[in-house]
Amino acid sequence: MSMPVHSLPATCRAAARLALAVAAVSATAAGAGAQAPLRAASPDGRNVVTVGVQDGGLFYSVERGGRKIVLPSRLGFEFRDAPPLRDGLALEGASRDSVDETWEQPWGEVARVRNHYNELRVSVVERALPGRRFEVAFRVFDDGVGFRYQLPRQPALQSFVITDELTEFHMANDARAWWIPANDPTHRYELLYGSSPMSTLPEVHTPLTMETHDGLHVVIHEANLVDYAAMNLTSSRDRRLRVTLTAWADGAKVYGRTPFVTPWRTLQLADRARDLAPSVLGVNLNPPSVLDDASWIRPMKYVGIWWGMHINTMTWGSGPKHGATTANTRRYIDFAAGNGFGGVLVEGWNEGWDGDWAANAERFSFTRPYPDYDLEGLAAYARERGVGLIAHNETSMGIANYERQLEEAFSLYERLGIRAIKTGYVGDRTKEGHAHHGQYMVRHWRKVLEAAARHHIMVDVHEPIKDTGERRTYPNMMTREGARGQEYNAWGAEGGNPPEHETILFFTRMVAGPMDFTPGVFDIRIASTDGTPRPPEAARVRTTLAKQLALYVVLYSPLHMAADLPENYEGKPAFRFIRDVPVDWEQTRVLEGRIGDYVIVARQERGGSDWYLGAITDEEARTFDVPLSFLEPGRAYVAEVYADGADAHWLTDPLPVDISEQAASARTTLRIRLAPGGGQAIRIRPAG
Amino acid sequence: MSMPVHSLPATCRAAARLALAVAAVSATAAGAGAQAPLRAASPDGRNVVTVGVQDGGLFYSVERGGRKIVLPSRLGFEFRDAPPLRDGLALEGASRDSVDETWEQPWGEVARVRNHYNELRVSVVERALPGRRFEVAFRVFDDGVGFRYQLPRQPALQSFVITDELTEFHMANDARAWWIPANDPTHRYELLYGSSPMSTLPEVHTPLTMETHDGLHVVIHEANLVDYAAMNLTSSRDRRLRVTLTAWADGAKVYGRTPFVTPWRTLQLADRARDLAPSVLGVNLNPPSVLDDASWIRPMKYVGIWWGMHINTMTWGSGPKHGATTANTRRYIDFAAGNGFGGVLVEGWNEGWDGDWAANAERFSFTRPYPDYDLEGLAAYARERGVGLIAHNETSMGIANYERQLEEAFSLYERLGIRAIKTGYVGDRTKEGHAHHGQYMVRHWRKVLEAAARHHIMVDVHEPIKDTGERRTYPNMMTREGARGQEYNAWGAEGGNPPEHETILFFTRMVAGPMDFTPGVFDIRIASTDGTPRPPEAARVRTTLAKQLALYVVLYSPLHMAADLPENYEGKPAFRFIRDVPVDWEQTRVLEGRIGDYVIVARQERGGSDWYLGAITDEEARTFDVPLSFLEPGRAYVAEVYADGADAHWLTDPLPVDISEQAASARTTLRIRLAPGGGQAIRIRPAG
Repeated sequence: MSMPVHSLPATCRAAARLALAVAAVSATAAGAGAQAPLRAASPDGRNVVTVGVQDGGLFYSVERGGRKIVLPSRLGFEFRDAPPLRDGLALEGASRDSVDETWEQPWGEVARVRNHYNELRVSVVERALPGRRFEVAFRVFDDGVGFRYQLPRQPALQSFVITDELTEFHMANDARAWWIPANDPTHRYELLYGSSPMSTLPEVHTPLTMETHDGLHVVIHEANLVDYAAMNLTSSRDRRLRVTLTAWADGAKVYGRTPFVTPWRTLQLADRARDLAPSVLGVNLNPPSVLDDASWIRPMKYVGIWWGMHINTMTWGSGPKHGATTANTRRYIDFAAGNGFGGVLVEGWNEGWDGDWAANAERFSFTRPYPDYDLEGLAAYARERGVGLIAHNETSMGIANYERQLEEAFSLYERLGIRAIKTGYVGDRTKEGHAHHGQYMVRHWRKVLEAAARHHIMVDVHEPIKDTGERRTYPNMMTREGARGQEYNAWGAEGGNPPEHETILFFTRMVAGPMDFTPGVFDIRIASTDGTPRPPEAARVRTTLAKQLALYVVLYSPLHMAADLPENYEGKPAFRFIRDVPVDWEQTRVLEGRIGDYVIVARQERGGSDWYLGAITDEEARTFDVPLSFLEPGRAYVAEVYADGADAHWLTDPLPVDISEQAASARTTLRIRLAPGGGQAIRIRPAG
Repeated sequence: MSMPVHSLPATCRAAARLALAVAAVSATAAGAGAQAPLRAASPDGRNVVTVGVQDGGLFYSVERGGRKIVLPSRLGFEFRDAPPLRDGLALEGASRDSVDETWEQPWGEVARVRNHYNELRVSVVERALPGRRFEVAFRVFDDGVGFRYQLPRQPALQSFVITDELTEFHMANDARAWWIPANDPTHRYELLYGSSPMSTLPEVHTPLTMETHDGLHVVIHEANLVDYAAMNLTSSRDRRLRVTLTAWADGAKVYGRTPFVTPWRTLQLADRARDLAPSVLGVNLNPPSVLDDASWIRPMKYVGIWWGMHINTMTWGSGPKHGATTANTRRYIDFAAGNGFGGVLVEGWNEGWDGDWAANAERFSFTRPYPDYDLEGLAAYARERGVGLIAHNETSMGIANYERQLEEAFSLYERLGIRAIKTGYVGDRTKEGHAHHGQYMVRHWRKVLEAAARHHIMVDVHEPIKDTGERRTYPNMMTREGARGQEYNAWGAEGGNPPEHETILFFTRMVAGPMDFTPGVFDIRIASTDGTPRPPEAARVRTTLAKQLALYVVLYSPLHMAADLPENYEGKPAFRFIRDVPVDWEQTRVLEGRIGDYVIVARQERGGSDWYLGAITDEEARTFDVPLSFLEPGRAYVAEVYADGADAHWLTDPLPVDISEQAASARTTLRIRLAPGGGQAIRIRPAG
């Protein structure tokens, strides 16, 4: 949603139990049959939530501008060894609250975020024994709705095991949904997106982005997932999306004890695809930062010993092709220092990679380097050059092994001035059989985040849990994977990403938060490492080179990698854009966009006056006329344009990039031509 | 595929057992382990099929231009009460054939069809007892591949029950597939299309259209389905599409007796989406017409008593709103005669509609009209005006009831000069529990087709089996439904078709054959029948009016309906296009197209010099510059253009149509502007 980024009078609260609510209460007390449903509207009045009890069940519905979005949908739980919280319910009371505040992000797609909503909290009680009570809080924003369950401390409900959350989203329209299947044992979130009527979905992950037949966009996701199982969605022909929670090894979904709150279930609503980003509904529903001092947290670009392993020129394990050697790492540190990058990722630096590392997680040490890797020396070498090492911690789901070493490892990193780690969780289950996205792992990730914060370490998680806005509370939660990234292009045709891939990611995965996609591969065709001729279906990147540049602007990440081998950037004028592009933004405007087709994003440098524009398309060539009306009126700018060459084509001629400069102002309209599978990257800086 | 429509020297045959094949045979005789695989290439050499035995299993693979399309994929069967035909197989021999002939269609998208292929027939034997033999014939065309099993008469294999066909399509690429789920109990084929990586598909119907990451298009379908179960496809994460056959009530898939041939399994291959149409692979794999005289078969446009039932202004059953009254039908006959339409469909004319007709199929009479419907008189009234009644036969899956009356009903229709029927099969199973798409129903539909041919009756099937090219053998098999048609727009927002719907249909359902989509609704917003204000999500058509016109050209059918109420056409200048547009074509050219986005089709009137052009888009406005180079060089034409009005939009302003004329020639380039959800229809006639 394009949000007004002006400061507002800080929190203005007006909590008040309303007559309406009281009426409802007394009606309940009288035990009189159906109760008047309660309504809450967004500040602009367009989004309306209705909550009420029908036949003893608790239901909510959502409308926008008088149009039904979510039909009456059930709320409730099923428990192990206890009756479900579903039937014989009555509204017991309700309270309301209104908030309008603007808070500042330490880093992000926008510097300041407006948190503006009306809240309705309903109290619900079982009429019959055990007479349990719970609350549901609804926050209605102009850009969507969030709701969560609260289970207060009570004798009849103390410790519990949730076996099923009954929350439904009964969609009024069989909207087109863009989805990835949930619980894929090997790929996790790393799948190409499908798109189909929401009534035909398999079990899918969130965020789930949908477009109704009339063009309204709806994203169902969750926020503030701290001590709960990840929410998946399963659909039925009658357009009911039911919550399915990821289970523990013993089949339980969630272990809890009152008082207890669930994550927020969120519905982001937008009239156009381009209004889905930047998405702030999720961070608004997370608690403010718990860090007194965030000055050590610094967004940065980085390079790393990584791509070489995927194209088979290096190995993680020891041997003749070992990537993480002292000499090789020095080369990367020099390259980073010479080009103003803040970090150098080193994978395969620590013991445990030899043999079948994925099967022998217990072997991983997070402190002992390989003999040919001088950890202390390299950390110092990096520090002297103003570069930070990024320590790689692959757990291969050996969680106990990792947690045992956590304090010792993070203390070591802190002492060496290693300010960032990249964690990895290859594997579907822990050694104890707990699922990758279940409550056990959710607890683990929070534990790592907290430990890292104590040691002033920024975190980049691969094979992560999805982003639910943790970065507001722990601003050292920088970025993560959680989607199909660049490395798939190194793994052969079947594994490659089609040209449309990133135009879908922007409106799906990226709505959740930053992604460490690792763009910037310049050797698009991925040179054969052994000189053998490559078959037509060989591994390659399915974009033009200019599109690789544009991805730095389009796909937001506070840690952005220049993924290719340093030697592939040498003597390439286009590399200048990667050197210039920032990773922290004052404001963001999505200028054009259609899911799976194209997107054009403009972002203003945080605390600066430069603007950067990224445009990408799918396999179709497209031309856009883009007014630069977002620039400061009357000011003279220079646009540094990195465009697809005249005959550029992702398949036949991906490399040509035309680099040019032109004068620009708020009155300028730029003609942006994108080749098939192409893109365009533009830096717009004040003249002179 | 755009095919050269010039006549060629008739069938040139060059059958010859090849040394290659003989070598294979002797190798087999020697019982020597693996045998040299056999290859067959298309006439242009681009498509190559390889067949061979590996570890006792029979496998085939397909390449195009050196690129792997289908990896080695298994062939075989499982039987009831007999061992599977799968293991311990050996190649016993092979024969080859080449055909290049051009045949004429009585009607169609193109007048003449080139049938040009190289055939490889492999004979396979079980090494161990029972030593059964079978053959697989591969026909390799420039536009794709077809293969089928032949089970010769043999002592070890006489009558049999197929429980599973083991045919696989192991795709080399995780291509994007456009699909509808198979075996939906209520919707059958009438579903909105999904699009997802082929490795994530549920069980789906064919034709299944796929686009690889590199832009190659593949359609898997079947041809000449005569006495077998419909083929569905089920995918797995490793990109194997497995054939799943629709079962009988007793679980059997196919009952057969040798000698026996299966339908052809087809892979249509195209380098671009627009080369998928007009698709002739299917008709080429069907036997030539069995009708000596097809002169009575006449493509035509029609109107009918139909839309009124869907928008609740009329009823099928008797009562005050009964649609099929003598007076009402005369009105439709007059309207048809006055506008040059050939037929008038009348639904609800016959006894059996009252009460729950879907549940009481046995009540339907196909000869007894309702008392307020003068069948004999109306048939005569129509004949005198050069119009033919189209008799509606809804079976609601009461197959026995329908088959009992078939001869008597068709004799009656023939006597009354009723030259066409519209059959209906609402319901998922027969009263005996046989599936809608199983062998029992496939046999039924063929029986109806043969009976209709004997009585000189053209057939339009609703709730049909998918089209597998029957029209070549029985040219009275005119058109059918088998997809989500116009009526869904009359059933409320959830059931409506989104603006992209027809741009997907063209590249999926329409590749199989003609569809009775029933376009031409002019009352786009569907006026409220009782004057009550309509909610924002009310039923409506999600196209502009101009797009409704374009559908007559884009969606091919030899029977095309003007679906709206006659009164909604009165005084509408745009109706002239529906009057003018032909339903039989000399040639067809797809000028532009992307699945789900847009398509532009040009068709030349059969035996005439007029061309018609239809262009449609999804919810996005688009502009195209279209050269008319297909026109006769040097000849002067006039283009009658029916375009979206300046501010037309399917949702906010669907009705404005700008009608204009302009001079045109083969040198003209037309600028075609399509509104969001819009279209354009053009008649191009010789000047003067």
